[in-house]
Amino acid sequence: MSEKLAIFAEGLFTAPNGKTAHGVIRYGTRDVVAVIDSTETGRTAVEVVPFALHPVPIVATLAEAIELGATALLIGVAPTGGKLDPAWRAVLFEAIGAGLHVEAGLHTQLSEDAELRRAATRAGVALRDLRAAPADLTVPKGPFTRPDAVKVVHSVGSDTVIGKKVVTLELDRAARDRGLRSVYVPTGQTGVAIAGWGIAVDHVISDYVAGAGERLVLEGAERGDLLFVEGQGGLFHPAYSGVTLGLLHGSAPDLLVLVHKAGATALRNYPGLPIPPLAELIAAYESVARPVRPTRVAAIALNTADLPSDDEARAAIAAAEAETGLVADDVVRFGAQRVLDAVLGAL
Amino acid sequence: MSEKLAIFAEGLFTAPNGKTAHGVIRYGTRDVVAVIDSTETGRTAVEVVPFALHPVPIVATLAEAIELGATALLIGVAPTGGKLDPAWRAVLFEAIGAGLHVEAGLHTQLSEDAELRRAATRAGVALRDLRAAPADLTVPKGPFTRPDAVKVVHSVGSDTVIGKKVVTLELDRAARDRGLRSVYVPTGQTGVAIAGWGIAVDHVISDYVAGAGERLVLEGAERGDLLFVEGQGGLFHPAYSGVTLGLLHGSAPDLLVLVHKAGATALRNYPGLPIPPLAELIAAYESVARPVRPTRVAAIALNTADLPSDDEARAAIAAAEAETGLVADDVVRFGAQRVLDAVLGAL
Repeated sequence: MSEKLAIFAEGLFTAPNGKTAHGVIRYGTRDVVAVIDSTETGRTAVEVVPFALHPVPIVATLAEAIELGATALLIGVAPTGGKLDPAWRAVLFEAIGAGLHVEAGLHTQLSEDAELRRAATRAGVALRDLRAAPADLTVPKGPFTRPDAVKVVHSVGSDTVIGKKVVTLELDRAARDRGLRSVYVPTGQTGVAIAGWGIAVDHVISDYVAGAGERLVLEGAERGDLLFVEGQGGLFHPAYSGVTLGLLHGSAPDLLVLVHKAGATALRNYPGLPIPPLAELIAAYESVARPVRPTRVAAIALNTADLPSDDEARAAIAAAEAETGLVADDVVRFGAQRVLDAVLGAL
Repeated sequence: MSEKLAIFAEGLFTAPNGKTAHGVIRYGTRDVVAVIDSTETGRTAVEVVPFALHPVPIVATLAEAIELGATALLIGVAPTGGKLDPAWRAVLFEAIGAGLHVEAGLHTQLSEDAELRRAATRAGVALRDLRAAPADLTVPKGPFTRPDAVKVVHSVGSDTVIGKKVVTLELDRAARDRGLRSVYVPTGQTGVAIAGWGIAVDHVISDYVAGAGERLVLEGAERGDLLFVEGQGGLFHPAYSGVTLGLLHGSAPDLLVLVHKAGATALRNYPGLPIPPLAELIAAYESVARPVRPTRVAAIALNTADLPSDDEARAAIAAAEAETGLVADDVVRFGAQRVLDAVLGAL
């Protein structure tokens, strides 16, 4: 019997923090039978989050999700800081008691919680920590250790929660559709939930974050020769810049795709901090990468989700192109072909 | 009875990786009764490593160190990657069996090793992991959260193992000698061993490395109002740049001191990667910090240890000053006063 997933996103399914739920519904290969969010019941996932694409029913309780056949429960929200919200413990114990496997991509490791572990052992179910780091990580060998034939494209961004993962997935899919041996390389908990492999590099000790990036590239190189490596954080993000730079230097990309949310002028979680202009961001990413392994931004992936009309979106894309001299497009709204063409043309 | 420390540095006391031993002997407040390194016996620490300053006897075995009164054993080497060398396990068990506390600043946590833990419990001794991360870390509140009266000076560098910690300690000491309420803020395992507080930020999960930097500044602000925050890694170091940038953005310094080893042209552990010229390094650190909290390099701390004569050292310092237009000096060789003057003048 293949696994049937219920995704817990109480009160947050429509919020940006619901991105784990959205990504797993849209891109995952497992059957999602229900989203649990009592504030959005009676509708389906795609009705309240069009990005999710699929009409997964939204229910109020775990019991209803079990009636729909759920055999595993995934925590589908990614809170800032990544801790387990104590309010979620009840549903975890309820799920374990009902015989469901439990899966989360938090910094809080379910399997390190003695009570959860006892309950899971008693119930014979698994606790899966998507963000667990491999035990044998270390520092990287260096930025020129992969085979020359393997090309690495890394999605970097101007902020968090603006769609770096989505851009990476869409570029990979479009490349595979063209018959290329392309691979999506997951670097975060949602990507691991979607792809079934990868490392959540933000849970790795900071000394090994570049080592994790290098390992992911070498593992990706066993799966294909055009690697789209998901980015994390942002170079000027006061909390996550260390993850960003470690992953950039560790994955040592040949090309970058810069992801930006149209109209965003300040950081989501630090509204006092402005986002620099795109041209400055491009120069900053290129110059901070250069001494380790030179790279350049090949295209802009603009997230225009906040712009209601396609005309406004096209105007924002044209403005980004004029500002940077690069191809820009919204790969979700208008498809990944133009950005992919720019990437392949620059390789 | 106050603690008496034996420092284990077998085969490595005179190597750069022996920096934990050197720092604890030179700057620590605990009594060091012996260094264990069978390749350097019969001499004292200061004879083979003048930087260490103190005539601590070097012995071949733990038994000799115990005869000299050792009540605790510190692993005094910092291997690249930070793992426990399996060859060191025997002396750890021997020390535990003899009733010594055991202390290490490795990524390998002694207290997570079931065998060591069993032995320590049986012997009634402590296993101390200097690199253990606080359990309640999270992301930072932001770069402007400290009191305005608190000034932060951060030592950044062109590479690892070139003396960022030493520069930080010397500047702090010189400032305290002038009657300032100065604090050395330890960010690595040796600093924690020396000062008895702090966080080894490179062992923190990468998502929290900036949060650790902010917390250290806020803790330092309870101890004084001029904080010298030890730097880690290097902005263009392919393994550790994530630690560097996270700590830079998290500690959000008012000023930087750039530490460089005179004559070094490539990274120690990655000899294929050149170190950019000082002027480029200065511009890079300042521009990558700016969007989060502007800062600038106030002075160059040049490590001239590889230059035999003071005249050569002075010429290298003059060249660094000419290249950068900043005050440069070797704070170990010639004292910290000129660099400290430049820092205080720029605050």
